[in-house]
Amino acid sequence: MKGPVCSKATLGRLPVYLDYLRSGGESENVSAAEISRALGLGDVQVRKDLNAISGPGRPKVGYNRKELIADLEAVLGRKACTPVIIVGAGKMGRALLDYDGFARYGIKISAAFDIAADKTDKRILPLECLEEHCRRFGIHAGIITVPASAAQEVCDLMIRCGITAVWNFAPTALTVPDSIRMCRENPALSLAHLTMPLRDRKERTPI
Amino acid sequence: MKGPVCSKATLGRLPVYLDYLRSGGESENVSAAEISRALGLGDVQVRKDLNAISGPGRPKVGYNRKELIADLEAVLGRKACTPVIIVGAGKMGRALLDYDGFARYGIKISAAFDIAADKTDKRILPLECLEEHCRRFGIHAGIITVPASAAQEVCDLMIRCGITAVWNFAPTALTVPDSIRMCRENPALSLAHLTMPLRDRKERTPI
Repeated sequence: MKGPVCSKATLGRLPVYLDYLRSGGESENVSAAEISRALGLGDVQVRKDLNAISGPGRPKVGYNRKELIADLEAVLGRKACTPVIIVGAGKMGRALLDYDGFARYGIKISAAFDIAADKTDKRILPLECLEEHCRRFGIHAGIITVPASAAQEVCDLMIRCGITAVWNFAPTALTVPDSIRMCRENPALSLAHLTMPLRDRKERTPI
Repeated sequence: MKGPVCSKATLGRLPVYLDYLRSGGESENVSAAEISRALGLGDVQVRKDLNAISGPGRPKVGYNRKELIADLEAVLGRKACTPVIIVGAGKMGRALLDYDGFARYGIKISAAFDIAADKTDKRILPLECLEEHCRRFGIHAGIITVPASAAQEVCDLMIRCGITAVWNFAPTALTVPDSIRMCRENPALSLAHLTMPLRDRKERTPI
């Protein structure tokens, strides 16, 4: 992978570029201008995105198609996926375990962990197996889907097991060392912001 | 509610202000400086947030505590909640139906709809009841948790039923008229961005 971590917005467009490059044309080289025209995206944006992933390209030539595909695949983890574990096999945990959009970004949910294993779903393992699983499969990313009251304890345990990137779905803020990447998912806040204009309406429902 | 729609970041801090104002002190008035000190937040940020919700306050006095609480409650929908429906009662739909963080932002999941009603869960209704339910309860916000292949059709149906704010969990882009507020939730992209630095590591798992 060339270059540093790209922005989330850029990352979101990479699968689109990759699909286009794989499907379209036989030419050896492809330019940012060609891609931006074909996809209806801004020329400057496409140039910046490709530069972040694969460098500036060659003047008047652009990018070698195969090399650009390889660079996109590397950033998107298509050749070597990133395994991620889930702790908390309640409804949200199970929903994420079955979510089918992760593969597009090179992410594979390796297993989910809960206080008790689920005999009907072999992907759900008892929590005491977490450490061994993480070490054995080299897992450094985890999703927290336990209730708020248990989230900090689970987070601390994950970090002891070698997790360095934590995605927190529990409705509470967590404290982590500076070396840990943490993202809090707050579905309520996203939905509340989306529906804010509705609060001005007269059609309100008493609680 | 005074003022226009506030930013998502501001909205995220409002429950914290409200909890503080409700729990702390008996004084008639409260200043932004006092709130920022108590909560360890930046003074400028607190002033901007409160100004967006309740105006600038009175010089050297600040805000009347009861009025500020009332304004925060209004924006957060604590007195009159915003009802929201879900279409798609698969795992993600059911997880959101049970998610307990919505009430803090004045959101109530009114019901979920699916092709077939669920006899074991009375909150899940057949899709043909959607229109009547929306009109009867004045519902203007909906969450899409159906598979990608059905998402556009469901979105169009929602709009015909009077929905004006759509939160899309299906892993696909949807087309809506300009008058519709649309937010696409892409869990894979959030997680992929969080885990990008891990892709540089040697510990990769072959797919």
